[in-house]
Amino acid sequence: MKNDVNRQVLLRARPTGIPQAEHFEVVERPLPVLTDGQVLVRNSYLSVEPAMRGWVSAVANYSEPVPLGGVMRSLAAGRIVESRHPDWQPGDVVVGMFGWQDFAAVDPDAIQTKVTSAEPPLSAWLGVLGLNGLTAYFGLLDVGQPRAGETVVVSTAAGSVGSCVGQIAKIKGCRSVGIAGGPTKAELCRDAFGYDAAIDYKQGDLDAALTAACPNGIDVYFDNTAGAISDAVMKHLTVGARVVICGTASVSSWDPVPLGPRVERHLLVKRARMQGILIFDYANRYDEGRVALAQWVREGRLRYREDILDGIDKAPDAIASLYRGENLGKRLIRIA
Amino acid sequence: MKNDVNRQVLLRARPTGIPQAEHFEVVERPLPVLTDGQVLVRNSYLSVEPAMRGWVSAVANYSEPVPLGGVMRSLAAGRIVESRHPDWQPGDVVVGMFGWQDFAAVDPDAIQTKVTSAEPPLSAWLGVLGLNGLTAYFGLLDVGQPRAGETVVVSTAAGSVGSCVGQIAKIKGCRSVGIAGGPTKAELCRDAFGYDAAIDYKQGDLDAALTAACPNGIDVYFDNTAGAISDAVMKHLTVGARVVICGTASVSSWDPVPLGPRVERHLLVKRARMQGILIFDYANRYDEGRVALAQWVREGRLRYREDILDGIDKAPDAIASLYRGENLGKRLIRIA
Repeated sequence: MKNDVNRQVLLRARPTGIPQAEHFEVVERPLPVLTDGQVLVRNSYLSVEPAMRGWVSAVANYSEPVPLGGVMRSLAAGRIVESRHPDWQPGDVVVGMFGWQDFAAVDPDAIQTKVTSAEPPLSAWLGVLGLNGLTAYFGLLDVGQPRAGETVVVSTAAGSVGSCVGQIAKIKGCRSVGIAGGPTKAELCRDAFGYDAAIDYKQGDLDAALTAACPNGIDVYFDNTAGAISDAVMKHLTVGARVVICGTASVSSWDPVPLGPRVERHLLVKRARMQGILIFDYANRYDEGRVALAQWVREGRLRYREDILDGIDKAPDAIASLYRGENLGKRLIRIA
Repeated sequence: MKNDVNRQVLLRARPTGIPQAEHFEVVERPLPVLTDGQVLVRNSYLSVEPAMRGWVSAVANYSEPVPLGGVMRSLAAGRIVESRHPDWQPGDVVVGMFGWQDFAAVDPDAIQTKVTSAEPPLSAWLGVLGLNGLTAYFGLLDVGQPRAGETVVVSTAAGSVGSCVGQIAKIKGCRSVGIAGGPTKAELCRDAFGYDAAIDYKQGDLDAALTAACPNGIDVYFDNTAGAISDAVMKHLTVGARVVICGTASVSSWDPVPLGPRVERHLLVKRARMQGILIFDYANRYDEGRVALAQWVREGRLRYREDILDGIDKAPDAIASLYRGENLGKRLIRIA
C-alpha cells in the first residue's frame, strides 16, 4: 500500500444478474484534493453486501444506480486524515458511504457514525452494528413484529443479516428456526447463533423439515431468498403471519420476472402480510438500533462472525462470491 | 311457495374449482321444529357471494367447509315467525347466517343484526350494509389505509365489494380508478360509482391504461382477482404502497397453485405490503362499519346496485353465474 496513491474499484460494465469480477476494475489514481467543508477518510475496512447487486443494476430500484466508471458505492470504516470542516478532526474514526477505495474525499453528510469506543471493534460497525445488524433489527422488530412465544423462521439463517435476526428473535422470547445451505451452515445456526432448530435445505424434504421444526406453524418469516425456500415456507404460515421481504438471494435475475407459485391465496386464507424492508428508510433511527445492538453484543447475547479478505484486489469478485455462498460470516475487505 | 314446506339448497358434490349448478340440489323438507332457545326465521332474501367458492372447498381455508348433504351456508335476511327465546319476538326483522332455505331454526347467535329501520331497504343489509360493504369498509380503511390525495385502484370495480371500495376511497379524498371487464361495467364505474377513471381490461394494453389513469402511481390496490390484472398493477406501485388481497376471482383453481410473476422484488424495491382480509375477523366491529355505511347511503354518497333473481331454484347456478360475470350488482335471491 502506498500512501500517495488512491486505489479505487470502478464499475466497468452493468451486470444483468449477479455482479462478477469482470464488471469491475481496480485502478490507481492520485490522492483526491479536498475542497472547503470536506474531510479525507483513509478507509480500513470496505463492506460487501448482497444488496450491491441492486446498487449496480439499471432495473427499477430504490436508489440511483452506481454510474459506469464510478467508484463502487459502499459502506466503509476508516479514520479522518485531513479535515477542512470545523466539526471533524484528523484522527476521528468514522463509518460512512466512502466507497470501495483507499481514500475518500467526502462531505460530512457521507459520515453515518463517529466511533468513540474500542468495543465492539471497528469491523463490527460494518456488520452487526452496520447495515446488516440494523436491517435485522428494524426488519424483524418493526416489520415482522414478533411476539414472545411465536415461531420465527429465517432464510440465509447463518448469514450476516439472518444470524442477527435469529438471535434477536431469541432475545425477544421467540422460537427461532434457521434455514441454511449445507451442514456447516446449519451447524453454525445451532452452535454459534442459538437457533432452536436449523434446517439444511439441501438435505431432502424441506416441507417435512418445516413441519417438524415448526409444529405450531410459522408466525414470522424473515426472507432473504424469494425462491423455492419461500414457496415451501408459505404453506406453514399461521393466521395473521408476517413475511418480511429483505432479499432475493435465490433469484439470479429479475429481468424477466421469474414465475413462482402465486401467494395471494395464502395471504387471503391466513390473513397474512408480506412487506418489503429497505434499511435506508430507517436512517433517522439508526442510532436507536445501534445502541440496542451494541448492548447485546457487549452482553454476549448477540454473536457475529466475520469473513475478512485482505487487499482491495479481492473486491471485484467479492459480491459474486457471496452469492456462491462461500463466506461464513460478514464479508469485509481489509485494506489498511 | 308453500308455508308448510321448507325448500333447501343442499351441497351434493364438492367442486374443485367454481361451484356449478350440478354441485347443488333443491329439496323439500318439513318445517323444522324449534328447541328451547331457538327462533324460526322465514327468509326473504338469500345472499350469493364469490367467497362461497371457499366455503364449499375442501382445500385449506378459514372456516370448516359446508358438509356434503348440508344446507348451503349463506347470509340471509328475513323475519322471525316463531320464537322460543325471550329476547326475540315474532315480527323481528333479522339478518344472519340462515342458509339457502325458506325457513331456518337457529340459535340467536346466528343472528348478526336486528333491522329496525325501513331505510335502507332490507335487501341492502345483504349487500352494501352486509358482508360486501363491510369488506370494502374494513379492507380499504383498516388494511389499505388510504390517505387523502392517494390513488386507489380497485379490481372487479363494478362489483358489490369493488363499487363500495371505489366510493369510500372518494369519500376519503382519494383518486379512485376502477378496473372492470367490458364497456358496460366500465361505464357503470364512471357513471354510477363515481370513479375518477375506469379501465376495461378487455380492451388492449392494461399497462398503458394504468399509466394513463395513474400518472403518480398506485398507492393502494384493492384486489379481487389475483391474476393478470394484479400482475399488471404491481408494476405501478408507489413506495410504501399497500395491496389488499380480498379475493381471487380470476384464478379458477388453486389446486395445484398456479404460477405467476414473483412479487418479492416489487415488494422489496417499493417497500410495499400485501395483506389478506377476511371480513369475519371484524365481527366485533360490524356495527361500527354499518353505522358509517348506512349514513353514507342515506346521504347519497354511497350508491349500490342489486341483481335480484326470483325463486330458490335460481340458487344452484348463482355462484357460477357470478364468476361468469353475468351480474351487474349485488346478487341476491328473493324467495318471499
